[in-house]
Amino acid sequence: MSEHVLAELRKQLDELNLQLLTLLNQRAKLVREIGEIKKKQGVNKFDPEREKDMLDRIVKHNEGPFDDHTVRYLFKQIFKASLDLQIEEQKKTLLV
Amino acid sequence: MSEHVLAELRKQLDELNLQLLTLLNQRAKLVREIGEIKKKQGVNKFDPEREKDMLDRIVKHNEGPFDDHTVRYLFKQIFKASLDLQIEEQKKTLLV
Repeated sequence: MSEHVLAELRKQLDELNLQLLTLLNQRAKLVREIGEIKKKQGVNKFDPEREKDMLDRIVKHNEGPFDDHTVRYLFKQIFKASLDLQIEEQKKTLLV
Repeated sequence: MSEHVLAELRKQLDELNLQLLTLLNQRAKLVREIGEIKKKQGVNKFDPEREKDMLDRIVKHNEGPFDDHTVRYLFKQIFKASLDLQIEEQKKTLLV
């Protein structure tokens, strides 16, 4: 019986992983769009103030089970990956 | 004009962050449920084989802009946070 339940939960987990993947890539595209506008404005892409605002807003909505510390940590990793992606893409543009 | 577009994109980003937060916490709950079943079965919670399968399945569906390496890295952080959460909760149970 529990094997059946386990298989079902794992299926749900796999689906959830793919939903997360979709959102992460959507987020990366959005950050790229924002970066392009900021570039045109001649503004620096990395904005620690805005990053802090985003993290505060996220944590304010956190209902767990992840604690606020973990949520901040995970989102910082996501933010950093998005910024790294922009830097990588900019490098490629410069090399062309 | 671009200020208006920027404000709109940032609003979308804030919404996307909250959707991500919801999914991350849903995922943590699901992993907890799976952990409880495995505990009853007397099976170890950390299963490197299953983790590898999940990562392979995720990367197979990755259409970018994040590259596979970044996707693996981000999901490993998420997996680790979920496992840490279970360990923390188990400790609390043992202390009660």
